[in-house]
Amino acid sequence: MSVDPVLSQIDDDLLPATERLKELLRIPSISTDPAYKNDCETAADWLVADLASIGFTAEKRATTGHPMVVAHGGEGGPHVLFYGHYDVQPVDPLDLWDRDPFDPVLEDTEKGQVIRGRGTSDDKGQLMTFVEACRAWTAVHGKLPFRITIFFEGEEESGSPSLIPFMKENAEELKADVALICDTGLFDSDTPAITTMLRGLLGEEIIVTGPDKDLHSGMYGGAAMNPIRVLSNIIASLHDENGRVTVPGFYEGVDELDPAVKAQWEALGFDAKGFLGAVDLSHPAGEQDRSALEMIWSRPTCEVNGITGGYTGDGFKTVLPSQARAKISFRLVGKQDPHAIRENFRAYVRAMLPPDCKVAFLSHGAAPASVMALDNPAFERARGALSDEWPREAAYVGSGGSIPIAGYFKTILDMDALLIGFGLDDDAIHSPNEKYDLRSFHKGTRSWARVLAALNTSA
Amino acid sequence: MSVDPVLSQIDDDLLPATERLKELLRIPSISTDPAYKNDCETAADWLVADLASIGFTAEKRATTGHPMVVAHGGEGGPHVLFYGHYDVQPVDPLDLWDRDPFDPVLEDTEKGQVIRGRGTSDDKGQLMTFVEACRAWTAVHGKLPFRITIFFEGEEESGSPSLIPFMKENAEELKADVALICDTGLFDSDTPAITTMLRGLLGEEIIVTGPDKDLHSGMYGGAAMNPIRVLSNIIASLHDENGRVTVPGFYEGVDELDPAVKAQWEALGFDAKGFLGAVDLSHPAGEQDRSALEMIWSRPTCEVNGITGGYTGDGFKTVLPSQARAKISFRLVGKQDPHAIRENFRAYVRAMLPPDCKVAFLSHGAAPASVMALDNPAFERARGALSDEWPREAAYVGSGGSIPIAGYFKTILDMDALLIGFGLDDDAIHSPNEKYDLRSFHKGTRSWARVLAALNTSA
Repeated sequence: MSVDPVLSQIDDDLLPATERLKELLRIPSISTDPAYKNDCETAADWLVADLASIGFTAEKRATTGHPMVVAHGGEGGPHVLFYGHYDVQPVDPLDLWDRDPFDPVLEDTEKGQVIRGRGTSDDKGQLMTFVEACRAWTAVHGKLPFRITIFFEGEEESGSPSLIPFMKENAEELKADVALICDTGLFDSDTPAITTMLRGLLGEEIIVTGPDKDLHSGMYGGAAMNPIRVLSNIIASLHDENGRVTVPGFYEGVDELDPAVKAQWEALGFDAKGFLGAVDLSHPAGEQDRSALEMIWSRPTCEVNGITGGYTGDGFKTVLPSQARAKISFRLVGKQDPHAIRENFRAYVRAMLPPDCKVAFLSHGAAPASVMALDNPAFERARGALSDEWPREAAYVGSGGSIPIAGYFKTILDMDALLIGFGLDDDAIHSPNEKYDLRSFHKGTRSWARVLAALNTSA
Repeated sequence: MSVDPVLSQIDDDLLPATERLKELLRIPSISTDPAYKNDCETAADWLVADLASIGFTAEKRATTGHPMVVAHGGEGGPHVLFYGHYDVQPVDPLDLWDRDPFDPVLEDTEKGQVIRGRGTSDDKGQLMTFVEACRAWTAVHGKLPFRITIFFEGEEESGSPSLIPFMKENAEELKADVALICDTGLFDSDTPAITTMLRGLLGEEIIVTGPDKDLHSGMYGGAAMNPIRVLSNIIASLHDENGRVTVPGFYEGVDELDPAVKAQWEALGFDAKGFLGAVDLSHPAGEQDRSALEMIWSRPTCEVNGITGGYTGDGFKTVLPSQARAKISFRLVGKQDPHAIRENFRAYVRAMLPPDCKVAFLSHGAAPASVMALDNPAFERARGALSDEWPREAAYVGSGGSIPIAGYFKTILDMDALLIGFGLDDDAIHSPNEKYDLRSFHKGTRSWARVLAALNTSA
């Protein structure tokens, strides 16, 4: 089963493929906001119907949260599991979007055509590259090259609460020889990448309470403790002057980078100035004795993702608020233990509280980092396939983002995962005006066709 | 013109007076929120009609913001100007109210009957005590005791942008022998008070920008400066470990309290434990070498009234935000110069910014403190009248809140102001479930009748 006619079919079918993607993008499947629950169902239904149309036996499978989509197709070895997620991030602040986030269009830009809209790059555009590769393969050869199971979740952007139970309950069905995950990026627009190191994520919310009701800052100001001041003190103390995180024990399990890998990363010629310059910054803000690439790929972080307290509307209100709250996340690397860090963080915050203040915590997920073992030959086969499609040789890279699924495939299903994706740093994922290059969509689909051919050892 | 039949008339008319107040309270005249602009007009119209119904020549007077209400009545000396404000604070967080803030009711509580709703105590209930006293006086004696000008504004809760221009343009009309202002409180439920020291208010908003768009904290976390972290560092640095404000030059113009006044305050037997205990606090949080009463009456403060940045909705979003903002106010005392403090504060914040961060500022008002000279005999006449009505002798007190109008009456109209009000610390002004004691409303009305009699030197 040659790949060349499949690649031609993909080229010929690009416009209809784009229209199919736009249909999926129009469904506002924001998983973290309960108001969009029905839209998540609709997105799952759309995928089931599309997969069935190209010969998969596809089902929407209920969970206590948003549904999973599981589909089976093809016969013979190897058995490959493909993972993606159909849920998307919220779209606020909406006024920073140049158009409706859920009315996607093809736009001409200086760098070529892009598909603009929420979820184009994270992750609907990416998961559809694989679906389109399967569609083209089936159209040309009448069947898939080997047994393929597709597994889409709808809770990736909200901590994946149903994922582990579902994988455990359906382990036999989902277990394959290797997993393919499409939720990462190219190294740059000419260099494909297989991500072999992923940071973990610990999400915490702190709620500090001072007085038991909102007060008038004239009447009580000076005498009553202000919880915004307390919360600011806590946040200000979380980093030292060198950018290191101060939570006790935080760096336990953080490995120094292997010198060979470090040398490989240095050879990539990462343009830290351009990376930061693209968002109007110039100074790497993390640990001051680390390179920018280490800061985002191999070093742990602490970020405040949201803060609120008191009056935040137009105008001014002289309130001394009862509560202030912050959402704080830690990116984890190596063998850092998210549960130990959670306990240490909470103890650290409690110890900083002045008299009269109370604190409550909410948990928003806890996933360790993933580091791939590269001894499965599928890694080198896929790297070769990607190198054939793109101008430059494919590289093994790290990723600052957290894709806990890769770790779960290893620990729950004892399965290696190949993280291959076609996003770019300027895709503005999680931000207003998210986009996906049409070239990423097109060459991504072609890349998957080549990877399927390369993995087809029984051919 | 004896006051006794006026007091009887007030007693007999209490229920209808309460119903009139409820009509005014039902108008949601939130001045800081443009959505309620028409309601502010409606509240002004209601007051014009009510004042006209008791013989005043009353008018709504346009400004570039919400309208003023000016009314004239009575003849002969002295000429007295009465001030109040018909606008109210926003009502969020609405879910902490036990009922609709704009559907006022009389409620039985352990401490007696209260009128519950936004604006009951601040300031609609208070301004209506004076209107009801005028109504009763006119009903009994057929006319007011002397010339009375009533002056209501609708922007007190949003920085009074139109107040100074209006007072200057209408100085001749508004200038009187003495001003009466009803926007303060009793010292305690048995002790009336004339407020002779008022803190000023400087309102500032800081907007810190890091990256020029919201980022994914996985992709950029560690390398990109987080503006919430920067803003928290700034806020955390605004107080030292002893609770003193650290802005350079902040304490210039802060006078030590006159020992005689300090002794008088100590004699009041202020219950700091009860004051803080009422809001579930126990430790005075201001300058640690000052009494709680000094902290709220005679010492300057810095409070964060609101903070927001990043994702603040339900769930979690791993955003590294572009912006964070805080509303910060300074309560000022003595001769502190709000404009000098604004400049020092802004310079201090700019000096704290790390590379790559930008800051913008918004101004939300700047009013110095007011300290009354007590040599006008009206002060002692009013103090005697109040002492006749209430169980305990009236006292001269300080106030933590800012009522810039008192200073403007002095500087623009060269007129002393008597600040007399009937609010209580537990009225929850600016907070959910605001109330005004029916006793405050009733005895407040009676108090004004007695004050009118005491000021009626031509009788």
